[in-house]
Amino acid sequence: MSVVFTPQQLRARIRYGEYDGNTSGQCPGYVQGNVVILPGDWAMEFLQFCQFNPRPCPLIGMSQPGEYCLPDLGDDLDIRTDIPRYRIFHHGELASEVRDIANYWRDDLVTFVLGCSFSFEEALLADGLEIRNLSEGVNVPMYRTSIPCQSAGRFSGNMVVSMRPMLAADAIRAIQICSRFPSVHGAPVHLGDPSLIGVKDIARPNFGDAVAILPGELPVFWACGVTPQVALEQAKPPFCITHSPGCMLVTDLPNSKLAVI
Amino acid sequence: MSVVFTPQQLRARIRYGEYDGNTSGQCPGYVQGNVVILPGDWAMEFLQFCQFNPRPCPLIGMSQPGEYCLPDLGDDLDIRTDIPRYRIFHHGELASEVRDIANYWRDDLVTFVLGCSFSFEEALLADGLEIRNLSEGVNVPMYRTSIPCQSAGRFSGNMVVSMRPMLAADAIRAIQICSRFPSVHGAPVHLGDPSLIGVKDIARPNFGDAVAILPGELPVFWACGVTPQVALEQAKPPFCITHSPGCMLVTDLPNSKLAVI
Repeated sequence: MSVVFTPQQLRARIRYGEYDGNTSGQCPGYVQGNVVILPGDWAMEFLQFCQFNPRPCPLIGMSQPGEYCLPDLGDDLDIRTDIPRYRIFHHGELASEVRDIANYWRDDLVTFVLGCSFSFEEALLADGLEIRNLSEGVNVPMYRTSIPCQSAGRFSGNMVVSMRPMLAADAIRAIQICSRFPSVHGAPVHLGDPSLIGVKDIARPNFGDAVAILPGELPVFWACGVTPQVALEQAKPPFCITHSPGCMLVTDLPNSKLAVI
Repeated sequence: MSVVFTPQQLRARIRYGEYDGNTSGQCPGYVQGNVVILPGDWAMEFLQFCQFNPRPCPLIGMSQPGEYCLPDLGDDLDIRTDIPRYRIFHHGELASEVRDIANYWRDDLVTFVLGCSFSFEEALLADGLEIRNLSEGVNVPMYRTSIPCQSAGRFSGNMVVSMRPMLAADAIRAIQICSRFPSVHGAPVHLGDPSLIGVKDIARPNFGDAVAILPGELPVFWACGVTPQVALEQAKPPFCITHSPGCMLVTDLPNSKLAVI
């Protein structure tokens, strides 16, 4: 029997070691977020990078330095314990993966929460569209592109995109639906010929898994939350914490709250 | 020196024989419409055809039988005289083209006014997008497709589409902009491979003129107001009047009034 937990219940289970899996499909209807935690002296530039590049880096929450609660995103939320798995980076290199970051916490750390594609995938499914990576039960394919982000201080890099193949009429409908949700990447940034955005081989994604593109379908590309991770790799801050891929922060915000219209 | 007339001024000039040209570019900012005038015993089925197929046949006005004023669409508007050129059809065949229809008027005639692409082209231009047919100074290319309309009584047929080539990012923006204007055909119905909607040769449109498709551009297809004309050709009502192509009814409605959001 499958039990549906509220976001607060799921975060409590994660906090007390009862759940450490992916959050995809958990707490349907609620916003999940990508998490980046940086020292204060890197925070301003990262904030600026997000503001310059809202499609790959849509900011839905940010803490004060040292603050580990994010009351706007969730009741009783503690960013140090409420994500299933975290990644610790030193100078841009992955150092370890951990179940909580209480021992790493510092009073200069600033938490950023960025919207993720789960919200718009839910809206597309609700409209009857097929999401190929969900149908095939794999991770969405993601690609490095030649589309430059606008640099901010030490943060720069090209956009990473996710791809979902669709028939043209479905792609047009997806553009309409996703345009309502700018804080979870918004409308696609490209569709059709992958080479026009520097994607050499659609069958070999740089991240995630390849999916089938059926006859008559176009590849449709969305700005992707992996973009800031690539910018972090290049900027190499001495210390940084992120969520592990697929293990997102589950918030109390209903997805519908993110719709601008 | 170019003089800009108000819609009411332009209609008066047309009525008094001072203007009989195309209305493209006249009265910028105001809605122009396709016009179909049918005997009362054909009107209900045509109304139903429009309601079943709102993308090619977006109804923005309709008269009572015999009524030649359409006060909702324009002050002092007289549908018998205020269009530069009319076409008279007998049993689906073009019989004549005339400057006014006062002599043809009957007290059972019902007037339908349907939104036209001029409104959304203006919105696209205002956003900085290029409209190829305007840049090239030709009529937009239009194609018969394999997309069936939903039949209503004696009216049936496949959709006719107009085509504007665009880079993918511009096509995505155009979808967003046009989605605000469902009563002037709304979002595109297809983009990419023309053969998927039954268009055999993109270089040879069925109506209008061919335009260049540049490297990297996708053909983007909108439902077109020529669709009801094709349905009329097939239905062959004994008597019917339409505007002549390009010679639209210029209304007092600002284009922005048609935006749903």
